[in-house]
Amino acid sequence: MPDVMRRAEVIELRPERAEEYRALHRAVWPDVLACLTRNNVTNYSIFERDGMLFSYLEYTGDDYARDASRIAADPVTREWWTLTDPCQRPVASARAGETWAPLVEVFHLD
Amino acid sequence: MPDVMRRAEVIELRPERAEEYRALHRAVWPDVLACLTRNNVTNYSIFERDGMLFSYLEYTGDDYARDASRIAADPVTREWWTLTDPCQRPVASARAGETWAPLVEVFHLD
Repeated sequence: MPDVMRRAEVIELRPERAEEYRALHRAVWPDVLACLTRNNVTNYSIFERDGMLFSYLEYTGDDYARDASRIAADPVTREWWTLTDPCQRPVASARAGETWAPLVEVFHLD
Repeated sequence: MPDVMRRAEVIELRPERAEEYRALHRAVWPDVLACLTRNNVTNYSIFERDGMLFSYLEYTGDDYARDASRIAADPVTREWWTLTDPCQRPVASARAGETWAPLVEVFHLD
């Protein structure tokens, strides 16, 4: 059984764009979802509270950096991001150039 | 196939107790884990960043409120919480009496 990599990330949701963000995510473009699936992203959720977005996903491939690059190069995904990026703002502690910022796993129970 | 309920929650990690919290979670008591499993909690992770703890779990039973009450009534779990509670502080927006505060799911891809 291949190991599953769990990844959690956080970003801020701009209050004035919050409803727009929610509406976009009630109808994510099928090609955006297909690109994620094709690149071994599964069980992917985004949660919201207090102006923060928290994402959780599982990666079932063998090279996350490669597949993340493929997702970032996908034309439909890039177009989708032109809609979602303006709704978000990196957390204060994000590194330069980072959008969603990763958390560290401190506990897991299968 | 039973529906899986996903639940994400947030709480603050007290900076002066952060290392203690991490150490506790590197060796969670087996009876605490067994109680979670017995009560239909699975794929449970806790992540940390910037003094915040985010949890993600999946619930495979048919009555989350009942099973959450059973977990909260378990003597070993209650003893465990006497160690972990002092490391945590509810977020400012938590309701009265709430410890971990739930997020709202805005997106999911299986």
